[in-house]
Amino acid sequence: MDWTLQNNQLCRSFKFKNFQEAFSFMVRVAFVAEKQNHHPNWSNVYNEVHIALCTHDAGNTVTERDYKLAKRINAILGE
Amino acid sequence: MDWTLQNNQLCRSFKFKNFQEAFSFMVRVAFVAEKQNHHPNWSNVYNEVHIALCTHDAGNTVTERDYKLAKRINAILGE
Amino acid sequence: MDWTLQNNQLCRSFKFKNFQEAFSFMVRVAFVAEKQNHHPNWSNVYNEVHIALCTHDAGNTVTERDYKLAKRINAILGE
Amino acid sequence: MDWTLQNNQLCRSFKFKNFQEAFSFMVRVAFVAEKQNHHPNWSNVYNEVHIALCTHDAGNTVTERDYKLAKRINAILGE
Repeated sequence: MDWTLQNNQLCRSFKFKNFQEAFSFMVRVAFVAEKQNHHPNWSNVYNEVHIALCTHDAGNTVTERDYKLAKRINAILGE
Repeated sequence: MDWTLQNNQLCRSFKFKNFQEAFSFMVRVAFVAEKQNHHPNWSNVYNEVHIALCTHDAGNTVTERDYKLAKRINAILGE
Repeated sequence: MDWTLQNNQLCRSFKFKNFQEAFSFMVRVAFVAEKQNHHPNWSNVYNEVHIALCTHDAGNTVTERDYKLAKRINAILGE
Repeated sequence: MDWTLQNNQLCRSFKFKNFQEAFSFMVRVAFVAEKQNHHPNWSNVYNEVHIALCTHDAGNTVTERDYKLAKRINAILGE
């Protein structure tokens, strides 16, 4: 999965060619997050995106909802 | 300006009604950043966006380029 | 509503200050459309957006689903 | 190039897997268009995007600016 568990969050960092590619990826993730009604804690600087997933309603622990979103994010990248 | 200087960064937090509004604001900022070729260090969780600006080419200090981008971000919000 | 019925479609044209504002509006509409799983037939040139709504599954006639989407699009503009 | 000249416009139609993929492609194109300050005449229905390029300042004929944008749009698709 390339995601790691850190401090009760499912995390992964992504690197793209430039800002346009990084932000376009974020748009794709935003659609998926909105559809699953499960939103990432994420940050971006230029061509880098860092995503951390946890479930607020489950006391900020990692649940099935986070793994589901992580899998869909991987699918965006063709993984 | 509503921006504060913290650790050599020009910072501001924004709160919106929901994720869609927060992310649409990010799209607006992304266009401006790309046009100015000056990109924010920013993060988002649901309806909250935090932006930190500094100039990499100036040893990560705050320069005119950061104030210019901050003003344009304010303009997006009608400020 | 400012929408008109033309050839079995619910239509409205929108004019913005520039391309960035027009396209950011489209991003907002895209989120709503995706959430309602009901997508517009729309076009854009620079600061202009034209939207035409009809329901494919109802023989391309205007149904409640189109009025619902039109109302949400108006809400994006604060109407 | 896969683009065709029709009525003094450089045109191409694109088909994607679904709306999310089609609209994310549009976001990529929007960034490029804004950077080149040259905007497409385009439309979308669900997974289909149609783009028509011409240069307003040149009496709505096809110029080098249109070919330049077309090439960049192809590059987005890895072509």
